[in-house]
Amino acid sequence: MSSEAPAYRRMSVEARRTQLLTAAVDLFGHRRPEDVSVDDVAAAAGVSRPLVYRYFPGGKQQLYEAAIQGAAQELIGRFAVAPQGAPTRRLADVLDRYLDYVDEHDAAYAALMRGGGVAGDGRTGAVVDGVRRRAVQQVLHHLGVARPGPRLATMVRAWIASVEAVSLIWLDEGKRPPRADVRDWLVDQFTALLLVTAARDQETADAAAPALAEETPDSPAGVLVRRLAPLAPLVAHLAKPPGDGADPPGDGADRPGG
Amino acid sequence: MSSEAPAYRRMSVEARRTQLLTAAVDLFGHRRPEDVSVDDVAAAAGVSRPLVYRYFPGGKQQLYEAAIQGAAQELIGRFAVAPQGAPTRRLADVLDRYLDYVDEHDAAYAALMRGGGVAGDGRTGAVVDGVRRRAVQQVLHHLGVARPGPRLATMVRAWIASVEAVSLIWLDEGKRPPRADVRDWLVDQFTALLLVTAARDQETADAAAPALAEETPDSPAGVLVRRLAPLAPLVAHLAKPPGDGADPPGDGADRPGG
Repeated sequence: MSSEAPAYRRMSVEARRTQLLTAAVDLFGHRRPEDVSVDDVAAAAGVSRPLVYRYFPGGKQQLYEAAIQGAAQELIGRFAVAPQGAPTRRLADVLDRYLDYVDEHDAAYAALMRGGGVAGDGRTGAVVDGVRRRAVQQVLHHLGVARPGPRLATMVRAWIASVEAVSLIWLDEGKRPPRADVRDWLVDQFTALLLVTAARDQETADAAAPALAEETPDSPAGVLVRRLAPLAPLVAHLAKPPGDGADPPGDGADRPGG
Repeated sequence: MSSEAPAYRRMSVEARRTQLLTAAVDLFGHRRPEDVSVDDVAAAAGVSRPLVYRYFPGGKQQLYEAAIQGAAQELIGRFAVAPQGAPTRRLADVLDRYLDYVDEHDAAYAALMRGGGVAGDGRTGAVVDGVRRRAVQQVLHHLGVARPGPRLATMVRAWIASVEAVSLIWLDEGKRPPRADVRDWLVDQFTALLLVTAARDQETADAAAPALAEETPDSPAGVLVRRLAPLAPLVAHLAKPPGDGADPPGDGADRPGG
């Protein structure tokens, strides 16, 4: 080390920025935002507090937003899986990586999704929304849907909201049940939502048909279909349209499949 | 001030507090939090700004939290419907009231659920979580479930997250499709989630059985069962266990609805 200037002065602007950001991503990735200070970032990077402010004049807020962006990029990177095999198998692979992230970065994930912390001004929300949009795109990509109708796009978005809620509850409950159970259940939820949405919306039905044709008996969708079979007696009494028996019809419930 | 005190000085402490709170609930209920000031509340109540601060020393933040509490109480009040009829019919009634609230208080609902606004410190989040907990309790009550297992409770919570996501998208899309369509679709989602959760979890299956027995052919669950029937060919190739001579995947699946 030189006696005149600390070693860190020799780094390029870009290298320094990356170093500070890496420290911030790591800190915000493992603690709640309120438990991270600019001093913590400086200490983790081995630099002075004023130096952090030179690169991030917005201080903690700016570091937090940059860290969120970095975390978002990492999360988005996990959505990509090989475009082969049954769609529900691919979905299970993506969920494995997603839940892996939730597991590794539990405190940060919870803080981010709960919208708490220092950045309650909508910008964090915009980053999270960006992650969700990419997640929707990836799911539709794995379904083989280039241009989803509005109902299918909303369904995928609703399912992702469900994934987030289940992930937060999973963290609250000490990461029980086992992650693989949560993953399989979330894939089942997706398949179920796809089918009931297809039952109401022709665009979704058209998109679902080729995706379901790619499913195999040993894919998650195949396992679900066979798991549901024993429940058929629970809904058998609903299969006949109202008014087919002696009872007068109530209100005019519409007939499906007409 | 002059010897002639303004009329508002004559109100009791409790009446004044209620008056200010009513004004705040109304303002926060129809505008985004960042578009409401203490001056607005003072003007709406016809009092001075210092008087508002006398009752709410925390200013806008305190008024906002109190307004959120008031809105939460109103929303919770809408969850109660008569405990009779098919469970999915009751669920549709509750959703009607919920979507009615979303429709009436669109700006406030969006701000609240997005976690934006002035109160990004977790306290608003706690109020929203309180509403969600009550919603979960009400849904379980209408299902006739006194003590849900963890999987069923998580499922209901995930469905509520989905309801919130769909409500926000519905607002973003100019309140299309018609509210009744959204309601029916969300009820279908619930029924589907209940069935796939019952397929994996015995506690849920035990809770679902009596609830499904109460369903009738003209209830939403009945309509759904008959709407799903035409989709059966899409999953027929999954019904046989793997290695049991199932058809090879990838052959053309039938299109629903002809």
